Amino acid sequence: MPNHLAQRLHVDYPIFLAPMAGEAAKAPLVAAVSNAGGLGVLGAGYMSPEKLLATIAEIRALTSRPFGVNLFVMAPGERGSAGVDTMRQALARYHAELGIAPPALPASLEENYDAQMEAVLSAGVAAFSFTFGVPSARHIDALKAGGACVMGTATTVDEAIELERRGVDAVVAQGAEAGGHRGTFLTDDFQGAMIGTMALVPQVADAVRLPVVAAGGIADRRGVRAALALGASAVSVGTAFLSTIESGVSDAYKLALTGPASRNTGVTRVFSGRPARGVRNRFMDEMRAFEISAPVYPVANALTRDMRAAASRQGRPEFLSLWAGQAAPLSRNCSVAQLMEELREGLSQSDLPL
Amino acid sequence: MPNHLAQRLHVDYPIFLAPMAGEAAKAPLVAAVSNAGGLGVLGAGYMSPEKLLATIAEIRALTSRPFGVNLFVMAPGERGSAGVDTMRQALARYHAELGIAPPALPASLEENYDAQMEAVLSAGVAAFSFTFGVPSARHIDALKAGGACVMGTATTVDEAIELERRGVDAVVAQGAEAGGHRGTFLTDDFQGAMIGTMALVPQVADAVRLPVVAAGGIADRRGVRAALALGASAVSVGTAFLSTIESGVSDAYKLALTGPASRNTGVTRVFSGRPARGVRNRFMDEMRAFEISAPVYPVANALTRDMRAAASRQGRPEFLSLWAGQAAPLSRNCSVAQLMEELREGLSQSDLPL
Repeated sequence: MPNHLAQRLHVDYPIFLAPMAGEAAKAPLVAAVSNAGGLGVLGAGYMSPEKLLATIAEIRALTSRPFGVNLFVMAPGERGSAGVDTMRQALARYHAELGIAPPALPASLEENYDAQMEAVLSAGVAAFSFTFGVPSARHIDALKAGGACVMGTATTVDEAIELERRGVDAVVAQGAEAGGHRGTFLTDDFQGAMIGTMALVPQVADAVRLPVVAAGGIADRRGVRAALALGASAVSVGTAFLSTIESGVSDAYKLALTGPASRNTGVTRVFSGRPARGVRNRFMDEMRAFEISAPVYPVANALTRDMRAAASRQGRPEFLSLWAGQAAPLSRNCSVAQLMEELREGLSQSDLPL
Repeated sequence: MPNHLAQRLHVDYPIFLAPMAGEAAKAPLVAAVSNAGGLGVLGAGYMSPEKLLATIAEIRALTSRPFGVNLFVMAPGERGSAGVDTMRQALARYHAELGIAPPALPASLEENYDAQMEAVLSAGVAAFSFTFGVPSARHIDALKAGGACVMGTATTVDEAIELERRGVDAVVAQGAEAGGHRGTFLTDDFQGAMIGTMALVPQVADAVRLPVVAAGGIADRRGVRAALALGASAVSVGTAFLSTIESGVSDAYKLALTGPASRNTGVTRVFSGRPARGVRNRFMDEMRAFEISAPVYPVANALTRDMRAAASRQGRPEFLSLWAGQAAPLSRNCSVAQLMEELREGLSQSDLPL
């Protein structure tokens, strides 16, 4: 049986770049993964519609192969200001240490999701994936009508079933090992939705009739082989691509990934207001008291933006959100082509498209 | 390359029963797994030396095949009474509800570990595995001299390296998905040592030159195949065996495992004082405030013993420690032979002994 998902996406290998928003969301990495026969996916959650369109154009200048775009699906409405004042006070010392103006909540907390979606629809991409919620039926229909393969992120079996009901083409099963933000959207119990990839993938594969993309803890050929054995049709690999030559993240970030620090990751709300896994650092450790009281996403994310930007300019990883999964220690500094060669060694003939 | 670990243990398949102490620690299940070609392992952590010897004799009456014994390795000394009084007060309402005498801390908190070890040494078993700590060099030497294959439990790469240094024959890599108690012993940061099986197994396989046994989230042929792809030489399966016909746990427990409740597991300290994963129930939910303040193991374990015993007699699963892993929903009510047939479908010729 050939791999229908890879076939549908016109990729050589069922190996996807996990969407990584922020610093990692740059055209060269996305294009390099697609050029190497996988599916590059742009984490566009933090991009303005203009930036999104410009980056898509940049990707298209670098590759003629299919790629995808990922958005954060945010419900409109109240963002809540609970916890803002105490968090501002806590951040003040870090701003002082970095020599920047005291923390302030910016007028604009986030990009306009509807405008981002319009940009994606106008650009017409081969794949669209999403997290944090589910797009409206109108948007899902429009994406599919435009030819996009639509993939939603699930962290529980219930979420996978809900995504199938809402008409997606494939489900990304995001295990607890995964780096970056948790996609949990049907429950506030993020802890209860921390299900390891080994346990989650076969349960999701049993629960839906859609192709399953395994995410979380996959960084080499062994992980690829394991994920497919569990019933996945494809894998989503993020962290391992972050330390490649083509990745645009800072040297400080790459060093954190390939050095001993990356053995120690944790899930935290203190950077963004939403649980996300990253390399433990001073900010995470010192802000433990705010794990519960930090403002919600995207409020906390907006509050820490200046600190993170300054830390990035000054090469201070102790104040950066060093998103990384639990397989980060398997990361190497190599080219995308070399990593793809490693990963595809985990595939057998039946894992490939016709 | 044949499977050296299975060969050394003289088992047909590199499929081990995960040691499960307490209600599940009964001879028929252990013997049934060994008779089906795997390695039955008795979780003897809560057994008196007399009971341990009697159970080993019972296993030997039921099978002539190799089996193993597992002990909790407890450092001697201070157990600490912090939190005892407030926990007793909190337990009082449950004792009243169950109609039993108010909670009291028994004079004996735990079995004598040295005496348990002497019993194991005198019985001479094919395999000995341990968790919570590391036996003394004298004990490890004596076990090996007696012909036992000695296996230690690691939840981090550092723990695996330490176990190799201490002379074990194999390392059980216990992923975060696993049911029951966490084996974490080199750090107090249990949360940081919650590493998914998918990420943990390849890193442990890279870090030590010993055979690795994968544990956590493995419940069917897919999990077996995945674990071996990750670099494991064998798998340790617990929860899936709990609902078999030969398992001696209560019907209430089996029902919790095979029903919808088992989708919702959590790691808790409130039953025993040590983090362990089980099906979420009323006691876990209502006692959330004690996750941090509960007395240490084995003090809390001794404090909740009467409640759990009464709940078991009265068929009240809401007060039972329903230890289970995150793959519990894959559990079926079948025979051990049927489950072994399912699991060994995940093996290829090269995974078997010569």
